[in-house]
Amino acid sequence: MSSIPVVAVVGATGAVGREMLKTLHDRGFPASKVLAFASAKSAGDLVPFGDDELEVHELKEDSFDGVDLAIFSAGGATSTKFAPHAVKSGCTVVDNSAAWRMDPRCPLVVPEVNPDALENHKGIIANPNCSTIQMVVVIKPIKDAAGLERVVVSTYQAVSGTGRKGMDELERQVRDLFNGRDPENNVYPCQIAFNILPHIDIFMDNDYTKEEMKMVNETVKILDDPSVKVTATCARVPVFFSHAESVNVQTAKHLSARDCRALLSQAPSIAVLDNPREGIYPTPLACGGTDEVFVGRIRDDESIENGLNMWIVADNVRKGAALNAVQIAEELLKRDLLRVPDRDAFLS
Amino acid sequence: MSSIPVVAVVGATGAVGREMLKTLHDRGFPASKVLAFASAKSAGDLVPFGDDELEVHELKEDSFDGVDLAIFSAGGATSTKFAPHAVKSGCTVVDNSAAWRMDPRCPLVVPEVNPDALENHKGIIANPNCSTIQMVVVIKPIKDAAGLERVVVSTYQAVSGTGRKGMDELERQVRDLFNGRDPENNVYPCQIAFNILPHIDIFMDNDYTKEEMKMVNETVKILDDPSVKVTATCARVPVFFSHAESVNVQTAKHLSARDCRALLSQAPSIAVLDNPREGIYPTPLACGGTDEVFVGRIRDDESIENGLNMWIVADNVRKGAALNAVQIAEELLKRDLLRVPDRDAFLS
Repeated sequence: MSSIPVVAVVGATGAVGREMLKTLHDRGFPASKVLAFASAKSAGDLVPFGDDELEVHELKEDSFDGVDLAIFSAGGATSTKFAPHAVKSGCTVVDNSAAWRMDPRCPLVVPEVNPDALENHKGIIANPNCSTIQMVVVIKPIKDAAGLERVVVSTYQAVSGTGRKGMDELERQVRDLFNGRDPENNVYPCQIAFNILPHIDIFMDNDYTKEEMKMVNETVKILDDPSVKVTATCARVPVFFSHAESVNVQTAKHLSARDCRALLSQAPSIAVLDNPREGIYPTPLACGGTDEVFVGRIRDDESIENGLNMWIVADNVRKGAALNAVQIAEELLKRDLLRVPDRDAFLS
Repeated sequence: MSSIPVVAVVGATGAVGREMLKTLHDRGFPASKVLAFASAKSAGDLVPFGDDELEVHELKEDSFDGVDLAIFSAGGATSTKFAPHAVKSGCTVVDNSAAWRMDPRCPLVVPEVNPDALENHKGIIANPNCSTIQMVVVIKPIKDAAGLERVVVSTYQAVSGTGRKGMDELERQVRDLFNGRDPENNVYPCQIAFNILPHIDIFMDNDYTKEEMKMVNETVKILDDPSVKVTATCARVPVFFSHAESVNVQTAKHLSARDCRALLSQAPSIAVLDNPREGIYPTPLACGGTDEVFVGRIRDDESIENGLNMWIVADNVRKGAALNAVQIAEELLKRDLLRVPDRDAFLS
């Protein structure tokens, strides 16, 4: 693939899919054609692409004929079923679902952190979980500077992480409560309006949620270092956009809060907002609709020898999903890696 | 003092003051008379006490003549100024503000944790911070069973922690947003509706908030053990009632999640809600208006040798403030400790 690629977005009608189209357009991603796919029920719908609109086509096994790059955000089942067919058609896939992330054949990539993992891709590259992406962007420079022993993270995750239906449920519940009606919950297991749920994705045998184990396992895979210990508690909060994370880090060598602030100020894609006495720290509301990972409240943790606390916020739909996927695609293009070495790699 | 005491509530018109009156009434606290005090602007107002109403009197230096017990919840400045005068009148003070908590003359008490600290009180007993109370109720039995090395806590704190004005601001902002008006912020430094602020109370020289340092310092004082290391990140969430806390604990000896669950099930004032696959875990909404400290999501933390994660929720206005203060008063009464050894102890 050395001419201008034909690009497909799969799951184009969802919150992340729409953001992917917007991101491709706004960043001027080189595409000779952009195609929008979704399930049969959305076929014929129109989705915005810059000032134009794209017609949505039903996703089928042969949808990828002549497509060079497909970015999937249509859920794990769709990715499991259709990504191998895309590869079979010679199409390189960047997949935003959890389906392929821990597959040893698939690189799991945050371009600021482990771009070289793209080099030996087999046709499917996985985009990490939103809460993992914003954390590794920050802990990677810390690891490079001072080594990384352990991370204790607690998340404050927005309802847009559940897609449009999560945002609709929060909005409807608030409206019902303020109009004296009993709020119904259909998307979340209980009311999310004015509440916090320590429950994202399903529960595993070890009583962690799948979301929490994603943060543990994906971090190790992205950093390519099983010696990094991570423990996570993930909670859903009644916020529309941007995940916040309270992150406690133990480094191998001492790194002061002050040096950490200076280090992160120089790191790619990070904005340090850390002058709390002047009211400067990241909040989900202020960081929504932006591309950077924001860090503030960086403090020396006196409870251990080499400890740091920090507060990390990013727009989960952008850097946590659509933007990171498009950045992966840009990196593939830059490295001339839009090619599939073995079209049968994932069809067995 | 061995007859039935005269009781005063100072700050009776605030959210916690009203809850104190309700708690005194509902628990049948023995009182020959209950008096309600507040600032001059509330004098003459009526506040509910059971089916009756009490007239609010202006707080003055001589308000405590003939009063045996005063429970203060009127802010640090009022407590600093008036609690010494109460003691001068022979009145024992239970104070809910931060004014006296770290004063070495004042016991800082959670009745389930350190009731014996009451024995040598000098006239003022401090009620700990809301976020500290619910955490120590849970970590004390863990410390007794397995020793306690370190606690990493991240909080999700309700706006009722700021009092009625915090709740009013959240409600008004939501209403404005849903009616197309720009929400104003007067109480919090930025919009709290659909947002998270990593900022509770003022910032200290070490870049921690005062709220965070309360959790560190008060925990050590209540447990009477400077070897316990605590680090905290405190965040305000758009929830009306109940604080939630993600707590990571490192014990000295191994304590499995399973044994921890059994241990806490037997501990006073704790309700273990921990069957996540059946949807059983504590949420702020479900725990509002209750007296217990709720614990769930108890998990083995594999990132260190003796680690545990858990999720602690309690009604910050009840166990976090009014109820704990009334429980202190009950314990004082039971131990016949409503007496002031030196009326000049705090007037110097």
